[in-house]
Amino acid sequence: MSFASAQALVAADLIAVEELILKKAGSSYAPLTEALSGLVRSGGKRVRPTVVLLTAHLFPPANRHALLALAAAVEALHTATLIHDDVIDGAFVRRGQSTLNAMWTPSSTVMAGDFFFARAAALAAETEHPRVIQLFAETLNTIVDGELRQAFAGHDWDQPKESYFQRIYGKTAALFEVSARATAVLGSAPAGAEQAMRAYGYDLGMAFQIVDDILDFTSDAAALGKPAGSDLRSGIITLPVFYFIQEPEQRQWLLAAIEGKEGSTDIDRVVDVVRQSESIDLARAEAVRFAESAVTRLANFTNTPHQRALADIARYVVERRQ
Amino acid sequence: MSFASAQALVAADLIAVEELILKKAGSSYAPLTEALSGLVRSGGKRVRPTVVLLTAHLFPPANRHALLALAAAVEALHTATLIHDDVIDGAFVRRGQSTLNAMWTPSSTVMAGDFFFARAAALAAETEHPRVIQLFAETLNTIVDGELRQAFAGHDWDQPKESYFQRIYGKTAALFEVSARATAVLGSAPAGAEQAMRAYGYDLGMAFQIVDDILDFTSDAAALGKPAGSDLRSGIITLPVFYFIQEPEQRQWLLAAIEGKEGSTDIDRVVDVVRQSESIDLARAEAVRFAESAVTRLANFTNTPHQRALADIARYVVERRQ
Repeated sequence: MSFASAQALVAADLIAVEELILKKAGSSYAPLTEALSGLVRSGGKRVRPTVVLLTAHLFPPANRHALLALAAAVEALHTATLIHDDVIDGAFVRRGQSTLNAMWTPSSTVMAGDFFFARAAALAAETEHPRVIQLFAETLNTIVDGELRQAFAGHDWDQPKESYFQRIYGKTAALFEVSARATAVLGSAPAGAEQAMRAYGYDLGMAFQIVDDILDFTSDAAALGKPAGSDLRSGIITLPVFYFIQEPEQRQWLLAAIEGKEGSTDIDRVVDVVRQSESIDLARAEAVRFAESAVTRLANFTNTPHQRALADIARYVVERRQ
Repeated sequence: MSFASAQALVAADLIAVEELILKKAGSSYAPLTEALSGLVRSGGKRVRPTVVLLTAHLFPPANRHALLALAAAVEALHTATLIHDDVIDGAFVRRGQSTLNAMWTPSSTVMAGDFFFARAAALAAETEHPRVIQLFAETLNTIVDGELRQAFAGHDWDQPKESYFQRIYGKTAALFEVSARATAVLGSAPAGAEQAMRAYGYDLGMAFQIVDDILDFTSDAAALGKPAGSDLRSGIITLPVFYFIQEPEQRQWLLAAIEGKEGSTDIDRVVDVVRQSESIDLARAEAVRFAESAVTRLANFTNTPHQRALADIARYVVERRQ
């Protein structure tokens, strides 16, 4: 089963989620509404709210509005972080479209991100479920903490693999984790099932981000909307680079290139060499391990189309080419 | 009674509030902690948490941690908006100190603002009071909406006074309003008392922002840390300018200067003329009306040192010179 057919199981609810995110956009200054709507409508594959909505079929919540609000909160928070990341990275293309950053001033971009942060908080509050709200607030903290860590951890070539895992947890896996876990909480899942869904979300998110970091090397600039190896160019060490520099000669060669030492190699060449190295395979194997682990977390739940769809999403995440 | 003596009534709790805001800063990347602490510690007069803590003496809450969390949430949100405003305005001095913006890159500044947004959301969730959380989330939306409106409403010289009031509600009064109201809710105040405190917070906040907008003309650049009339320079119409342009000749003269028409007056001169005009007095009279209204909202509550302190804060807000 493909990602599209997994998602088709919750297609109608996804439309309701999108509308919910934008519900308050109309109350803002009119010229904004269109821009904000465009931003949400053009937005990605909706992997996170799809996880929420599929999980809800395993643990049906009593309150349908709370479920839609949670799915919308998760996607709004994702949108907010994407927008602020664009300011932070100075990126001008994302998902093959111009970012807000390219069209708007930096200050408007900051405000648009704040708009979606505020929507996320309001939507989480709309669940009216104290534990869900608490989990969501903790996730927001974890995400921001991850952003800050990434900003401060650049150019540390001696960081252990654990630092990378911690960063991608904050950057990506924490939101997947809360998507699955908070939905289980909303559906009054027993503690064991809640922890299983939490672990599923964690594993899925880790696999997702590792693959993103691989694609940053293996995709071409047109698909990425930025030069390949952009993280490396900013001194951010992702898993492929981590593996690459475990080999002392490769490490010395890469550092010389990055630090622009005399006679050192051009950075485009470094990206090419990493792309063709075994490091990519090592990183991919790690992503596959996380995805397989995600699938096993679902093993104790009844085999239903929605349970299988969650497993399919884990497989899709490592197979995707963009 | 001065603001200082009003605040002295809750001095010990204010220290606890400050610690609570920073509680998670240590979990972020270490070099950040100091910068974030500095930001909170140097931060303003703590008018908003002071309002929360004084109001709590009128309506004692059952849960002391929830009260401190609410006061901390309010101040964290205020800090977040100040930081993002600095990015938005490109301001480099605030409260007589270098802003984060001047020391940090814009992207770190965005992240530091996000850090305090996230703290605010987490602290609000810590109250574990669904209605308080809901009110707080709505306020966050109102504030961001206000930011966006201000960005898009510039250079509209025909806007009614209502537009100005709506903008300063979002920018400032909404947070004062929720400070007083949510504290009353936390203390299980009856509906009438909750509405009275809400109105007190609203009036106080409106007075506060009108005075800020007056001080933007009447203070000198050294105290402001930026040229006087900075809003006008950005095309933002505040109350003094609104009154100034109600007089057709003044309007024509000001517009010619702002639009840089040939032979028109230099903008420093415009700021000087507005400063010395009757418009300042008209704006101040409006602020005084709001402050007096704030005081009357407290009339039905028992005359205690804390009730009187809330009234004193309303008087202080219009008397302050910075």
